[in-house]
Formats: sequence, C-alpha cells, structure tokens
Amino acid sequence: MNGGIEWIIDAFDCRPAALRDGQAVTELMLRVIRDADLHVIGQAEHVFGGAGGVTAMYLLAESHLTIHTFPESGVATINLYCCRPRPALPWQELLSRSLGARTTHVRELQRGGAALVEVSGSVAGSR
Amino acid sequence: MNGGIEWIIDAFDCRPAALRDGQAVTELMLRVIRDADLHVIGQAEHVFGGAGGVTAMYLLAESHLTIHTFPESGVATINLYCCRPRPALPWQELLSRSLGARTTHVRELQRGGAALVEVSGSVAGSR
Repeated sequence: MNGGIEWIIDAFDCRPAALRDGQAVTELMLRVIRDADLHVIGQAEHVFGGAGGVTAMYLLAESHLTIHTFPESGVATINLYCCRPRPALPWQELLSRSLGARTTHVRELQRGGAALVEVSGSVAGSR
Repeated sequence: MNGGIEWIIDAFDCRPAALRDGQAVTELMLRVIRDADLHVIGQAEHVFGGAGGVTAMYLLAESHLTIHTFPESGVATINLYCCRPRPALPWQELLSRSLGARTTHVRELQRGGAALVEVSGSVAGSR
C-alpha cells in the first residue's frame, strides 16, 4: 500500500438542527482528531447559514479530514484519509451521539496501492 | 442522490520531481478548479520538503478538492467531491501532462444516496 487508507462515511437520518450547527460539527471533528491522534496543519470551515449546511476540512500531517452536511435530507458525509494505517473509529456511535444519525454507512478504500483496489463497505444498523 | 458525487483518483508512476514540486501541484489544482468551474471558499497547502511530498486542499462552494503526493512511490491521490452532478474530467490526460502519470485509476462514488451505494472504477491505460 503506497497511498494510505481512506474511510468514506455517510450518515443518514441525522437531526437537521445539528447539521446546521457549526459548533456541533466542529466539536465532532475535534473529537475525531483527538480520538484518532491526528495532527492538524491547516483548516477551513464554512457555515452556509439559514437552511444550509456546514462544510469543514482539516489538512492533517496524516492526510485529511472533511465533512459536508445536508440538513434538507438529514445527511452528513465525512472523509478521513490517513497515509498510515490506523484502526477504524466507532463511526456509528460518534455520529449517533453528535448528529443523531440513525444509520451510518462506512466504506474503506486503499489509496495508491494496486491499480485495482479493494473496496469494502458496511452498514451500521439503526439505533 | 442527496450528498453529491465524489471522484477518487489514484495516479501511478508519476515523476517524483513533479510530486515534490509545490508549484506544479498548485498549477494542477488550479487547472482542475478552472476546468470544472469550481469556486474556492478556503484552502490550505503544505510542502513537506526534502524527499517528501505535497498535500493541498480546497474547500469549495461545491464541496472539496484534495491532493496528496508520495514521491517515494510515484503516487498521487486526488479527491474531487461535488455536491451537484457534473461531467468527469479527463483525469488521465491532466495527470499525465502535469505529473507524468503513466496510469490513472478513477473511481466514482455516490455520497449520501441509498445506504448501499454504487461504486464504479476504471483504469486509463499507459502512455
């Protein structure tokens, strides 16, 4: 594996108010950064305001972490890309607690490995 | 589809010197932004220096664009996430010209749609 590992996380049936709340989203991101022992070297965030969502990204010594939220459909999408392997986080638990997600779908991609790369997905059940 | 579309691009057998060159990587990113009519609302970049690679990310009105380069293995990994559908870019041509990539692997993921989401991949051949 030459390019690290990326987790692609889609959370469904979240609380729309949480998806519009920049502070709630920031707290979730900081929790992920702390729990996964990541190191931030740059960041940007934007709260679209009104009925819009929140978008944030962190450039990491280990690669990157991003989130986009879609209050109108109750969806949050997260990418966590680590250039070195590390254990998966308990995404369903994290996203249920922070955003009220009822279902979380996690895919794990190898990056920059063989030209055709294994893709695996899992769905964590409803609360 | 509630969460947009993401292209996961892995480029192989690139020129190591190009993968260490912050300016070359920035020019590639700006080309992608222009060609795909994207709108930047935040950005961060880091050149690791010496034998290290370059990492850059752009927060977009349309979601995000990231790149990480690995000169030691000739690999560059790019994510382009757009919350609204748009045509795929000619990645093999772009990455061959800018980074000397001999092979480019592109996967297209739907985000935030059905809980189990279609994944498709393609490999563009050698020069």
